[in-house]
Amino acid sequence: MEEDPSQVAETTTTTTSSVEGVGEGEERDLESNPLNQPLLKRSRTLSSNPLAIVGAKVSHIESLDYEINENDLFKHDWRSRSSAQVLQYIFLKWSLAFLVGLLTGLIATLINLAVENIAGYKLLAVSGLVEKKRYLTGFIYLTTANFVLTLFAAFLCVCFAPTAAGPGIPEIKAYLNGVDTPNMFGASTLIVKIFGSIGAVSAGLDLGKEGPLVHIGSCIASLLGQGGPENYRIKWRWLRYFNNDRDRRDLITCGASSGVCAAFRAPVGGVLFSLEEVATWWRSALLWRTFFSTAVVAVVLRAFIEYCNSGKCGLFGRGGLIMFDVSDVTVTYHAMDIAPVALIGLIGGVLGSLYNHLLHKVLRVYNLINQKGKIHKLLLSLSVSLFTSICLYCLPFLATCSPCDSSITETCPTNGRTGNFKQFNCPDGYYNDLASLLFTTNDDAVRNIFSTNTATEFHPLSLLIFFGLYYILGLITFGIAVPSGLFLPIILMGSAYGRLLGIAMGSYTKIDQGLYAVLGAASLMAGSMRMTVSLCVIFLELTNNLLLLPITMIVLLIAKSVGDCINPSIYDIILHLKGLPFLDANPEPWMRNLTVGELADAKPQVVTLRGVEKVARIVDVLRNTTHNGFPVVDEGVVPRVGLAIGATELHGIVLRAHLVKVLKKKWFLQERRRTEEWEVREKFTWIELAEREGKFEEVAVTNDEMEMYVDLHPLTNTTPYTVVESMSVAKAMVLFRQVGLRHMLIVPKYQAAGVSPVVGILTRQDLRAYNILTAFPHLAKSKEREKGN
Amino acid sequence: MEEDPSQVAETTTTTTSSVEGVGEGEERDLESNPLNQPLLKRSRTLSSNPLAIVGAKVSHIESLDYEINENDLFKHDWRSRSSAQVLQYIFLKWSLAFLVGLLTGLIATLINLAVENIAGYKLLAVSGLVEKKRYLTGFIYLTTANFVLTLFAAFLCVCFAPTAAGPGIPEIKAYLNGVDTPNMFGASTLIVKIFGSIGAVSAGLDLGKEGPLVHIGSCIASLLGQGGPENYRIKWRWLRYFNNDRDRRDLITCGASSGVCAAFRAPVGGVLFSLEEVATWWRSALLWRTFFSTAVVAVVLRAFIEYCNSGKCGLFGRGGLIMFDVSDVTVTYHAMDIAPVALIGLIGGVLGSLYNHLLHKVLRVYNLINQKGKIHKLLLSLSVSLFTSICLYCLPFLATCSPCDSSITETCPTNGRTGNFKQFNCPDGYYNDLASLLFTTNDDAVRNIFSTNTATEFHPLSLLIFFGLYYILGLITFGIAVPSGLFLPIILMGSAYGRLLGIAMGSYTKIDQGLYAVLGAASLMAGSMRMTVSLCVIFLELTNNLLLLPITMIVLLIAKSVGDCINPSIYDIILHLKGLPFLDANPEPWMRNLTVGELADAKPQVVTLRGVEKVARIVDVLRNTTHNGFPVVDEGVVPRVGLAIGATELHGIVLRAHLVKVLKKKWFLQERRRTEEWEVREKFTWIELAEREGKFEEVAVTNDEMEMYVDLHPLTNTTPYTVVESMSVAKAMVLFRQVGLRHMLIVPKYQAAGVSPVVGILTRQDLRAYNILTAFPHLAKSKEREKGN
Repeated sequence: MEEDPSQVAETTTTTTSSVEGVGEGEERDLESNPLNQPLLKRSRTLSSNPLAIVGAKVSHIESLDYEINENDLFKHDWRSRSSAQVLQYIFLKWSLAFLVGLLTGLIATLINLAVENIAGYKLLAVSGLVEKKRYLTGFIYLTTANFVLTLFAAFLCVCFAPTAAGPGIPEIKAYLNGVDTPNMFGASTLIVKIFGSIGAVSAGLDLGKEGPLVHIGSCIASLLGQGGPENYRIKWRWLRYFNNDRDRRDLITCGASSGVCAAFRAPVGGVLFSLEEVATWWRSALLWRTFFSTAVVAVVLRAFIEYCNSGKCGLFGRGGLIMFDVSDVTVTYHAMDIAPVALIGLIGGVLGSLYNHLLHKVLRVYNLINQKGKIHKLLLSLSVSLFTSICLYCLPFLATCSPCDSSITETCPTNGRTGNFKQFNCPDGYYNDLASLLFTTNDDAVRNIFSTNTATEFHPLSLLIFFGLYYILGLITFGIAVPSGLFLPIILMGSAYGRLLGIAMGSYTKIDQGLYAVLGAASLMAGSMRMTVSLCVIFLELTNNLLLLPITMIVLLIAKSVGDCINPSIYDIILHLKGLPFLDANPEPWMRNLTVGELADAKPQVVTLRGVEKVARIVDVLRNTTHNGFPVVDEGVVPRVGLAIGATELHGIVLRAHLVKVLKKKWFLQERRRTEEWEVREKFTWIELAEREGKFEEVAVTNDEMEMYVDLHPLTNTTPYTVVESMSVAKAMVLFRQVGLRHMLIVPKYQAAGVSPVVGILTRQDLRAYNILTAFPHLAKSKEREKGN
Repeated sequence: MEEDPSQVAETTTTTTSSVEGVGEGEERDLESNPLNQPLLKRSRTLSSNPLAIVGAKVSHIESLDYEINENDLFKHDWRSRSSAQVLQYIFLKWSLAFLVGLLTGLIATLINLAVENIAGYKLLAVSGLVEKKRYLTGFIYLTTANFVLTLFAAFLCVCFAPTAAGPGIPEIKAYLNGVDTPNMFGASTLIVKIFGSIGAVSAGLDLGKEGPLVHIGSCIASLLGQGGPENYRIKWRWLRYFNNDRDRRDLITCGASSGVCAAFRAPVGGVLFSLEEVATWWRSALLWRTFFSTAVVAVVLRAFIEYCNSGKCGLFGRGGLIMFDVSDVTVTYHAMDIAPVALIGLIGGVLGSLYNHLLHKVLRVYNLINQKGKIHKLLLSLSVSLFTSICLYCLPFLATCSPCDSSITETCPTNGRTGNFKQFNCPDGYYNDLASLLFTTNDDAVRNIFSTNTATEFHPLSLLIFFGLYYILGLITFGIAVPSGLFLPIILMGSAYGRLLGIAMGSYTKIDQGLYAVLGAASLMAGSMRMTVSLCVIFLELTNNLLLLPITMIVLLIAKSVGDCINPSIYDIILHLKGLPFLDANPEPWMRNLTVGELADAKPQVVTLRGVEKVARIVDVLRNTTHNGFPVVDEGVVPRVGLAIGATELHGIVLRAHLVKVLKKKWFLQERRRTEEWEVREKFTWIELAEREGKFEEVAVTNDEMEMYVDLHPLTNTTPYTVVESMSVAKAMVLFRQVGLRHMLIVPKYQAAGVSPVVGILTRQDLRAYNILTAFPHLAKSKEREKGN
């Protein structure tokens, strides 16, 4: 599983380039922006090696084929598909969406149950020891338990599925944008993610189960779609329809939505999260199916909560469809309250983008440590765990005990696992406010800090300590090798600062401090993750208070605007850091000044194949290039003009995978001739071609066979999307992204004998701003100049 | 304003066609589906006349230019745009979004105030008469008041702005899809819509102010974007940036969302409604700005409600951000409740699609009546008003009086304007349940029928009468010449049938009858309008009860699925009926079997212009064709090959509007030569070219000038989107819609001397399934066969 260190070295050193004349000056210019420094150094050509960091390893990444490959086989299959088969497909599509929701709901239930029970018994035991004033024993107990749980999670992650570390959301985003990252959606990743997440969350680390749940949902969707894990697939005939990138994409979108829904119990929020943050393409049919999945999750969660209400789930007691319910608060606000609300947004935006900035730095450092090997990864995780345990246990001793307020109906002090007003080390009738926040699970901490009508519960100093601690923990915990979500840490930080602000406002405002905490959490989320509508709906479903909506909106708008002025969103930063070739929605302004023709000139000459091609040539091309698509060009007769000298015809594009299949199946012809449709249909089925399998290394062709021919016509996608060479890169990129392409052919704007019908071919890597700027440094300069103006 | 009857006749009779051999048999085949019968008969060629019914008149419609026209002028402008200008633009964009929200909010407030007061005083007076047993006087009073109010609304609509009739949502949908309908977003439409809506809603007609509010929001947005009404525009320099179709589209999306938000006080629902139902293209930047607009609306509404709470708004008393609040109900449901919930969805789907079907028939009949002239339109509206008044007043007398239940905390009986348990003709201590539903405003009727914990309030027979009456009223009211929304009539029907079902379920279910009413309303909405997520969120925000969410989802899913099996959504039916060339999201399956080359062959030869063209030729082309774009083809030298005989070059596409501008400005050259960039920049600015103005009829060119030349190069969009002739229509359509095109050039797949670099040009009309099927009837047959399988 460990990757070859030479590979990294290679990619770091191969800086042969087509732009030799570029000095170091430009390089520095380019990379003065922190976002322009991915962890992998790339060579200064277009279409550099498709490498990215996947789970702290450098891996080969591939683009996905979302385009419908309209070759003869496909068209035949399409025409001959019976109504029964279409119904099968539709039925299966909905069944899979149902199963994704069901399984995600069940696994979320399992994780919740496990976390609440493990963390619950742990805290109960420690709190018993603290009550008996056996502080040291309590400390050792807590630290050891957390250490073991972290070790369990990190060991699983490091040894069995490095891709399970982190939230997984950036990789899902990249997948839905068209980038396949290896081992992201496998069975081992899924299992490690589930148990790793249980371990890490129970260990009291400053991370959430939300991000991992999104990844879990996506893994389930992917596995269901392909009929099971890699080596134990169900070879069910129906399922083969789903063995293509398009249907997998839809399923994974459902999975991601289900995950968010399971995490926040927010079905509408889940759909919107996928729509706003994760998905690149969206159709209203998908909205509809995603919604179905999240509805199933919501029903499963509700059923489970009802079951648990009868006390059969161990320590999992309270709960409901809404996690942090503040619906009992009558929200009253006036024009006057706009000022503090705007302030929350403003500070949230600044703090959020500062968090992004710092986290970026921390991740770079962590990457250096993680690259050193498994032991280093483990040690890093365990040190963070130790630090966390020490802080969580020791800091509450700094807080002074406060007397319980008899006017509050809640029990005070509490000593159990849940509940506000923790007694901890205080005498009876007193509570330790810092312990109420630190000596509890993260979920309960949020619930406590959101609690309303308890204006004097938390001392400002306690909140400040809490905020500072969690800002630091949030930074150092995210990058360790355990499944970790970003949502909860940010909510914790945000709620603390929001409540602090609420206290600072004092009598100026009529808004409850608990609501300040909610708004603070929202603002920091918006400041860091830059979501708006989905976040708003998630908070709505989380807090069950519709009257908060207008002020939440204002907070989110301000926080996002402020954050956007400072740096990109945290997911964009991680995507760039990992080197995933994510295509942004909007082209850069300078892309209008460059044509795709110029871009094609900066690339090596396009490799074309003839309609009926020699086997030797195909083998040669496959061996010596890494391209995944080859234009097929015929010489021939032009209708309406007749036989013309030098006339050529663009037949389409053939995929590498299909060429490999032809070679493996040895579908060769003795003479140079075109085949009949039935000949190819005997050898290949459309479904077979849609699968992403087969490596060139497995091909063995004899010398005799080398002299034979292959008719590529029936395998060629005759309807590739094309652009004329005079097209601007900006518009080409819009086409590439909107239609979801892997290859885009460039056709000449000239019409004459002797002109090749294909000028070039563009892929995702060619259209990335960073790659173009390295190949055309003068554009970078003009960009800088524009900014300077 | 009245249209020329000869024009209709012309389009009805010109059935000259390129497919002469097609018999009547095929025609019937094609049109056996009710959706294949638009009101306008079209000729059997591709690109038939762009006519549609706009506000009951046949009008010329045009496509919009959403594509960025990258000609030399644009590129120069783009390069030279200073940061200050960019900031101006961004600032203005957000200011306009703010203003759209603000004005929509204020106008919604005005409409609410006016309706509540007018209808309130009317009902108060009548209820006073009824109390005094002066039944006949009461009847005359009510009928006369409603008659006058309807007359007012219908007169405004008929005489000043026929486009203000109906909801306007289908036209907005078409606009955002790229179809411009004349007079849809003008100042007169806006004013008539506002006052017409007040009149029609106050008149007690079975229609809502929701659809009109969406249209009002869009009108405001459009007017703001262009700086005021047609003849009184502000010629402010900043605003000129917005005088193009792209920015207008974004603004209108904001306007539509604001309208929904104002109608239901549902900010998130408003955004989602635009996203799911109205908009064709969606960018996350737009999500963000739309959200801002709806947030402003929500704040305005809230401020106004707070102001009115102090009693300064006349009869507008109750209210809040949530219209039909059922948040006080503790929702408990179990697995057992799935059955009735599924049943609601099922019946809702059937009733909804039945409603669509019947409404389609009624609208066809109404169209015949409306075509006869203004008087007929007025008479139709007034007859509906009379019928409505008679039913609303007389039917409650059929109901028996029920004794008030003392266990209910609400006042009973009530006599005022609002309130449940209307006394009407009953003795003290008794109430008339049918009067509680009929003798009130529509808003209050919904509120009463949604009321919870009042299980015995409504007699099943009363509900049945109510349901039947409103099903009929909903059918006959929608098509009359007043601003009318569909939401409220459907909610009224749905809630009645839902509550009936709840009573029928009896003790089987634990769900409150009020919730049954809510679910019934949702199911009928989904069954008729086929929205899912947006509807769910609107209901969530409307009812303020999150725990209803999972069951609402199930109801919506089932109702929509059932409805989709039967017929298209009501908006699609109206779009098709009006003949608006709406491009669907998904291509038809048979489109894969047709290439764009074949499509181009079925059209007349493409008309191309030369790079430097004679004035006479341009005038000739503009006079004799109706095309809006012409490919510009140069003869010339091919780089890398040299001067080639018969070599040609595709330079781009020039728009009709720009040619007209050239002719009007007389930018002619004495000799055939290419111009310098500064020459054209002296004459034209980019902003000027972006405007949609100028008619060919206004052009006057002398005979001398006819012999001069025009250099089209600087005005040509050099980066048109193109497809190769072998591209399938299905994929071409995806490109056309996804990128938002008006013209798509077809380039040859052959490369040879003498081949034209443009094979054809496709527009929206060419890609519509209905048009293609008329030109290629064999495809229709294969389609039928496929269905038959």
